[in-house]
Amino acid sequence: MTTVAKPITLDEFLQLPETEPASEYIDGQINQKPMPQGEHSLLQVELCGSINRVAKPQKIALALPELRCTFGGATIVPDVTVFRWERIPRTESGRIKNRFESHPDWAIEILSPDQSQTKVLRNLLHCCKNGTELGWLILPDEAGIFAVHPNQRIELLEATDTLPILSSIDLSLTVEQVFSWLNI
Amino acid sequence: MTTVAKPITLDEFLQLPETEPASEYIDGQINQKPMPQGEHSLLQVELCGSINRVAKPQKIALALPELRCTFGGATIVPDVTVFRWERIPRTESGRIKNRFESHPDWAIEILSPDQSQTKVLRNLLHCCKNGTELGWLILPDEAGIFAVHPNQRIELLEATDTLPILSSIDLSLTVEQVFSWLNI
Repeated sequence: MTTVAKPITLDEFLQLPETEPASEYIDGQINQKPMPQGEHSLLQVELCGSINRVAKPQKIALALPELRCTFGGATIVPDVTVFRWERIPRTESGRIKNRFESHPDWAIEILSPDQSQTKVLRNLLHCCKNGTELGWLILPDEAGIFAVHPNQRIELLEATDTLPILSSIDLSLTVEQVFSWLNI
Repeated sequence: MTTVAKPITLDEFLQLPETEPASEYIDGQINQKPMPQGEHSLLQVELCGSINRVAKPQKIALALPELRCTFGGATIVPDVTVFRWERIPRTESGRIKNRFESHPDWAIEILSPDQSQTKVLRNLLHCCKNGTELGWLILPDEAGIFAVHPNQRIELLEATDTLPILSSIDLSLTVEQVFSWLNI
């Protein structure tokens, strides 16, 4: 766990330059995300594509990769962030804001090799404590997906299990279908 | 994930000879537990000791290490299993039974290096779906403990957080206290 010698505040952290991969601040700790690899990038782009295909034309929701969200005393960068259309922060002129200072409605994390499952679950629990309706933790090495629900309820989905989807998004996916995206 | 070529049933699995370390059968899959190492064994013995010190003299509950529990279509061997006194299976002559065919009231798992966190969480979720009141997943490398509650609710506890204890057991422990047992 990467910790700095002198604890810094969230405001101080947010004034540091961005790193690549992004760094996150949660429970007073700073952690840098792992460098994304092939499987991770492919799942990320396929997820954003699948969600936006059904949710964007009708202005239901928007899926964005690697978006920094600052809320509840933390700042995290989920692999995929989904905001309901009406909750997308906008400038006065109607453009999307650069800073998202609210919880996502649906947060998706993809576990990278050697990444701490605990840290990623902690991020999703932070989301769901702060209003996020749905979290996914995708486990490519185990072909399973943890769904994180309100009240910190989790379930492990596998094989032909149908995945929970953010309500009002017209999408039906099984775990197998998600992992089949890796066969190119 | 260790799977056998031809799926076998739980009954067939239970007729196989025991392995060392123990093997578990859950969701049709067989997995052998990792060989326990120093930290794991020390936490296991200290936990059993601490729980039994307050719960055994008054016949409230009993903590046992490496006990096979068969229930809900699976057979698992939590690192520490706690049964309320009245739920300990007994023979007609009043001795403890060798076969436990019910869910534990409190199940504790200690993550070993290189062990799949998903598999261990899956075991604890299986417990809580079948009546277990409390699960702990101890993460020695991260100095944290996941508590698993009924309705599959989880929380991550760290540092000075007070751990949830099976009700009616008069024990108070912080996460730090549990990990301090490793300093000998």
